[in-house]
Amino acid sequence: MPVNQTNDLHRAIWEAINGKTKPVGSLGRLEALAAQIASVQQTLTPSAKRCKLTVFAADHGITEAGVSVFPQEVTRQMLGNFLAGGAAANVLAQALGVEFAIVDAGVREPTIEHTELLSRRIGNGTQNSVERPAMSAQQFQRALDAGTTIGGQDDHEVACYGEMGIANTSSASLVAAKLLNLPVAQLAGRGTGLDDSGFARKQRVLTAAARRTPDPLEPAAAMREYGGFETVMLTGAIMGAAASGKLVLVDGFIATVSALAALRLMPEARPNLVFAHRSAETGHTIVLKALDAEPLLDLDMRLGEGTGALLAWPLVRAAAAMLSDMASFESAGVSSHASPTLK
Amino acid sequence: MPVNQTNDLHRAIWEAINGKTKPVGSLGRLEALAAQIASVQQTLTPSAKRCKLTVFAADHGITEAGVSVFPQEVTRQMLGNFLAGGAAANVLAQALGVEFAIVDAGVREPTIEHTELLSRRIGNGTQNSVERPAMSAQQFQRALDAGTTIGGQDDHEVACYGEMGIANTSSASLVAAKLLNLPVAQLAGRGTGLDDSGFARKQRVLTAAARRTPDPLEPAAAMREYGGFETVMLTGAIMGAAASGKLVLVDGFIATVSALAALRLMPEARPNLVFAHRSAETGHTIVLKALDAEPLLDLDMRLGEGTGALLAWPLVRAAAAMLSDMASFESAGVSSHASPTLK
Repeated sequence: MPVNQTNDLHRAIWEAINGKTKPVGSLGRLEALAAQIASVQQTLTPSAKRCKLTVFAADHGITEAGVSVFPQEVTRQMLGNFLAGGAAANVLAQALGVEFAIVDAGVREPTIEHTELLSRRIGNGTQNSVERPAMSAQQFQRALDAGTTIGGQDDHEVACYGEMGIANTSSASLVAAKLLNLPVAQLAGRGTGLDDSGFARKQRVLTAAARRTPDPLEPAAAMREYGGFETVMLTGAIMGAAASGKLVLVDGFIATVSALAALRLMPEARPNLVFAHRSAETGHTIVLKALDAEPLLDLDMRLGEGTGALLAWPLVRAAAAMLSDMASFESAGVSSHASPTLK
Repeated sequence: MPVNQTNDLHRAIWEAINGKTKPVGSLGRLEALAAQIASVQQTLTPSAKRCKLTVFAADHGITEAGVSVFPQEVTRQMLGNFLAGGAAANVLAQALGVEFAIVDAGVREPTIEHTELLSRRIGNGTQNSVERPAMSAQQFQRALDAGTTIGGQDDHEVACYGEMGIANTSSASLVAAKLLNLPVAQLAGRGTGLDDSGFARKQRVLTAAARRTPDPLEPAAAMREYGGFETVMLTGAIMGAAASGKLVLVDGFIATVSALAALRLMPEARPNLVFAHRSAETGHTIVLKALDAEPLLDLDMRLGEGTGALLAWPLVRAAAAMLSDMASFESAGVSSHASPTLK
């Protein structure tokens, strides 16, 4: 059912939702979600049957400054775990009927070779951004382009993107600070589980790194100076997915910073984004607020890998089905008028 | 893996969860949910593959006092809609892979005959509880027993229960007020969508109904005086499901009042209950607080029919899979020790 005029479509969508056999508004946020999907797909019978999670992995030079509980080799070890199907993202994707893909965006050598691993290596990990730019302008563009291509591929209606990279909460905090013109100490949290002294150290390291460049920075500069290959690729993927008409489920803190950068480069992608969950990571609420985004779930999670996005997928699926498949008062012969005793 | 001692099992469950390849605690409430399922099933590899929603429908004599936006015949019309697969509960169950059943617990005549309709009619709707008890002691017991039998049947691991009955928010508000010893005006909300004058009328009607009996009432008396055939059956179903080792996803305000009554009659059912969502209906937060329950979802929904319970099912499924299927640090060869640079 092609409806060309945006305002007409908007009105038709809400007429359809309000005509369903339920009290008006009684499905709450599920109704707004259905309207968003219908609007993105330009139809009154939206479809959300296929969802795919792509996890981008890479290493960060800033690990050498000691900002994470876990040693850097965990990124590569986790790449092996994703390929063996044992990580949280694999298991949740499987349980929820979501396709899964894993991309090496620049994990430190030795390189893993595996038929299931999509190799899009931009480098052997980034540089230490405390001392110098994390990546070159050319590397930044290659990472962004690779992500855009990946985001535009396949015909799933809904895309989830996840990330894996030891120290990438540090990297994301720096990028967000530069984009939002805020002190990085306000955005940095305990990541995977720093104690008090580790957290104090991380705060000092990040503050020093932020001092190296002016405030604020343009999106490309912020990502070049402080970003990661996996998170820049994630930014590109969001842009590519939105450009190809997909709905994107945005995960936690790190993915939301990548989404913030994507929206600075491509503001018209905003209607395609659904913010999946509120992470327990400190900076997430700040970035969500800057984006005027109210996530669907709040489950005190802070794992990344796209796990929060995955848990919101059934809500998207249910919302689309509600609008496409529920009976209307008219079609079902159910009274929608007020009770005579109330008049 | 049979683990007999409760404390040993509890410790073993959390050791297993903390040994998974993720930062400790990083899956937040999903971890507590996994522990609950494992504890109910007495195993370290819990299973949540099958879920069934049973919707109980019946009519309420109190509708004649004018407490709902919708006329009473909507209950029967909606029964037809459930049987045709067009209601929200049908469509969401289908989208989320949940089995569906619909029970006539006492909808007003003319009676619907249909091969897919489970007929457990306790009467031709309840009496008007403003003037007299909603049901007899014998009807109460038959409704409770029918529910208990239904709850104990089948071998799905997870049960959702929903309700449909015009005016059943009024009935549930009265039952909750009598169980919690609170003024009914505090619990009553706008139901399916009353305006100011309709709401004021509902408040007056319910306050008059509540004055007819002492405060508080024992659970059986509260349900006999003010309950519905569908909500008493729902109380029985929760008890039967818990007794047969199922996990129960508790829906919104009305289902939570049925759960409150079930727990008064069978406190040992508490570990089997998962509170699915926080309804927008006024009284729900009060009843949840009385039960010390923190629901998983908050999506501003107030439809009933088990729709909120359905949306929490994927979380249960994902939580069980996490504990059963994720790799451990040991099995995956991933480092779980702190970074040397932090020491």
